[in-house]
Amino acid sequence: MAVSPYRQLEQEFRRLHAFRGALALLRWDAAVMMPRGCADVRGEQLAALETECHALLITPKVARLLDRAQANEQGLDDWQRANLREMRRQRDHAIAIPATLVGRLARTTALAGVKWLEARQQGRFEILAPCLEEVVHLVRDKAALLGQGLGLAPYDALVDELSPGMTTADIDAVFKGLARRLPGLIREVLDLQADRPVLPIGGVFPRAKQRQLAHEIMKTIGFPFERGRLDEGEQPFTGGMPGDVRVVTRFDTADFLTGLLGTLHETGRAVYYLGLPQTWQEQPVGCDRGLALQESQSELLGMIVGRSRAFLRYLQPLLERHLGVRGAEWEVENLYALLTRVQRSPVRVRADELTSPLHMLLRYELEQQLLAGELAARDLPDAWNAALEARLEIRPANDVEGCLQDAHWASGSFGCFPSCVLGTVIAAQLFESLRAGVQGVHEQIARGEFAGLNGWLRQHVHGFGAKAAIHELIRQVTGKPPGAAAFLRYLEGKYLEDSDAATEAA
Amino acid sequence: MAVSPYRQLEQEFRRLHAFRGALALLRWDAAVMMPRGCADVRGEQLAALETECHALLITPKVARLLDRAQANEQGLDDWQRANLREMRRQRDHAIAIPATLVGRLARTTALAGVKWLEARQQGRFEILAPCLEEVVHLVRDKAALLGQGLGLAPYDALVDELSPGMTTADIDAVFKGLARRLPGLIREVLDLQADRPVLPIGGVFPRAKQRQLAHEIMKTIGFPFERGRLDEGEQPFTGGMPGDVRVVTRFDTADFLTGLLGTLHETGRAVYYLGLPQTWQEQPVGCDRGLALQESQSELLGMIVGRSRAFLRYLQPLLERHLGVRGAEWEVENLYALLTRVQRSPVRVRADELTSPLHMLLRYELEQQLLAGELAARDLPDAWNAALEARLEIRPANDVEGCLQDAHWASGSFGCFPSCVLGTVIAAQLFESLRAGVQGVHEQIARGEFAGLNGWLRQHVHGFGAKAAIHELIRQVTGKPPGAAAFLRYLEGKYLEDSDAATEAA
Repeated sequence: MAVSPYRQLEQEFRRLHAFRGALALLRWDAAVMMPRGCADVRGEQLAALETECHALLITPKVARLLDRAQANEQGLDDWQRANLREMRRQRDHAIAIPATLVGRLARTTALAGVKWLEARQQGRFEILAPCLEEVVHLVRDKAALLGQGLGLAPYDALVDELSPGMTTADIDAVFKGLARRLPGLIREVLDLQADRPVLPIGGVFPRAKQRQLAHEIMKTIGFPFERGRLDEGEQPFTGGMPGDVRVVTRFDTADFLTGLLGTLHETGRAVYYLGLPQTWQEQPVGCDRGLALQESQSELLGMIVGRSRAFLRYLQPLLERHLGVRGAEWEVENLYALLTRVQRSPVRVRADELTSPLHMLLRYELEQQLLAGELAARDLPDAWNAALEARLEIRPANDVEGCLQDAHWASGSFGCFPSCVLGTVIAAQLFESLRAGVQGVHEQIARGEFAGLNGWLRQHVHGFGAKAAIHELIRQVTGKPPGAAAFLRYLEGKYLEDSDAATEAA
Repeated sequence: MAVSPYRQLEQEFRRLHAFRGALALLRWDAAVMMPRGCADVRGEQLAALETECHALLITPKVARLLDRAQANEQGLDDWQRANLREMRRQRDHAIAIPATLVGRLARTTALAGVKWLEARQQGRFEILAPCLEEVVHLVRDKAALLGQGLGLAPYDALVDELSPGMTTADIDAVFKGLARRLPGLIREVLDLQADRPVLPIGGVFPRAKQRQLAHEIMKTIGFPFERGRLDEGEQPFTGGMPGDVRVVTRFDTADFLTGLLGTLHETGRAVYYLGLPQTWQEQPVGCDRGLALQESQSELLGMIVGRSRAFLRYLQPLLERHLGVRGAEWEVENLYALLTRVQRSPVRVRADELTSPLHMLLRYELEQQLLAGELAARDLPDAWNAALEARLEIRPANDVEGCLQDAHWASGSFGCFPSCVLGTVIAAQLFESLRAGVQGVHEQIARGEFAGLNGWLRQHVHGFGAKAAIHELIRQVTGKPPGAAAFLRYLEGKYLEDSDAATEAA
């Protein structure tokens, strides 16, 4: 019997999946292992593979197969139909952009990634500026073409690429809700916390010890080290593929908490990857449902769980064992006070739950200006500092903790920060349902048991892959579309509490 | 003006080069970084890329362009003509093998690589055996098809793939020369050395310190760490690409000399890669001239230079500085006596200059038997032990230091060990000419100056890439085709010397 058009498509996408896995590995290597001088060579490799993936998607053969499979859709089951829809989606995105642009973007961002590292290490933004300008130009072209092809506004097209189904309207609605409440809430919390003394934790902890601690926690949470790695890099991220997940984190000897929470953040995403439907692993429908949902899993573990008393009860003995610390400042209540301490600070990855969304908002506004041509890359430092002052009433000491702190723009990722904010609010919304669904989840976490948490997430979120649209998925699980309400409820409950563990006792 | 067929070919091969670079990185990662459980995922990625490289070479488009470029060959310069010849060569090799076999080989060897690691770590050959049997079957098919396509005997076709232009006749001639003289020479040297006491060097040296020492030596020799890395793995090798060279070595805390010499061996190959003609870097003619010549560069640095008094004079203060050692056993003469100590031992990478070729001979004979179907993979341990006894009058304590010591067969590399022996004799032949061409090269090395050595090699060997056939290249530089004579002269001069640095004084 002849192989059906749908099955032929599955074969094509299996190859595509393998190429993308190779791409992911090359990118991980470039960020973690590759010597600086090799950016040119790597750029050519990435360009060749990106171009190949693109070529594979836009062949007349795939177009023909898509049409024929669509015509016979009634013979397919739910998953297959969703897979077909995702295949078409990928094709539509690819065909909107010419191959030459794909290649140029790959080459230019490979170089910009290295320039970003150099600029950071030398503390000189001008090392990155010209290359970043070029990236902005290329992304602008891409957004315009993608928008044209998909019938979306240019920026919406970029958002749709990263977080399928999300729009600027969704983002603006969320940001509006946050911008209305957060500044006031931050002031209230700062007043409240002014009367609550916190013991500072000192100490310099070797990175090797921090790594061992992180390793044990990841293992307990369920990260399978036979299917993944933990490494260090300038920019924390989760790379690789569901079958070979590469978590990258940044440890600071003088500030182990940031490294620990950053690792949790990435582990949340890694656990999501690992919970994707195995049988669909090499197909579009088996992939994650985009950046906003990825980020929600990161925020759920890194922020909501990681900054809970329950987690700290589990963590505290580990700190004593791995870092050899003890004393009043290492007691659970003091650690909790430290981790929920609100502070207007310049660095996003060190920001608390309340100020973090404002960091995102600032980036959202700046990247729109960059893409609209209203802001030149070379003028970014001043614009950044002014925006930070307007939003958080502070200025960074230098560009390294200012506009050089994130690698995203250099890597060509625009539309990424608003997806993160969507992730933040979705995390709170999911966690509300999770607490109702998993009795005693905090007690479990305090005992170092993560099976209840993971099981619920796998059953309600991870296991669906890209089968449902994100709105549909979130509504299905929480009863409501993604919005800021649950997040604000969560923040008010946690940060305006009187003194003890009221919110977690439920 | 239309792009000429030759220029179009250059574009095709530039893409191919990028894919091969990605492949090299995936292989390096699999050997050094990848978690064990990911072999399946990696296998699919390797298969997809291998198949793509293969597909690229065998397209009708490339065939047409090759013919048209050939018809207009008079318009090309020497390098371009040689490039065209190498392109055709690669195409001829590719077209002889079906794509399905390429994919199966990539998948099976990816798995076998992991099984080899497991088998080694558990000391159980049976973990590898079934998978190795499958690899042997696939390589046998490949050799038959390749031989058919190229008009060569199957084994010759494999040799030609690794070391273009070399044949079983060349190999047999060299082995005949060596097998005639070496056993007797080994006995003579053993007698001679029996009367010369050597002080043993003890001490356990942390791998981190050995790595620092290796790093400094590589840097002094000219390895550019902004274009390459040094890592540790189960099997030492040099991976990556000329613009991003990945040296992998194995440090043993109880035996730092093996790690050091192994690193030198790989560095010799790396320096070769780095000396290839830059302007042709992405083209077939800009590649290295195959395994035998690669190996010659490894042997020249790892054996001839690395076991010379001159090198030890440079090394000795470094040992004191990095490892904190001193005393009579660490004096140059004692180290030299140690490094030129002949000993019948089971492990190839620890073998001395005299017994090493016999290790290769044994492998050459066994792999021919495996491919001919005269020896089943499961019977390899017994056959190995018997062969070692016949050639070197010893038996390995176990399979880890027996037939599990090399990863080559598991990775599908057959025809590789005889290329290594060709490399060994070529190294000696080149070094004879080099000594005549670079006045005082030993004095330079003793001072830690490697520019004279590298400069000569780059001028006479590295810089030619794949422009000339290997016979032609060696004849051009040394006045003779590759043969065993210079190597035997070198061994006799060095190992039958009375006592002092006679051979190096010249």
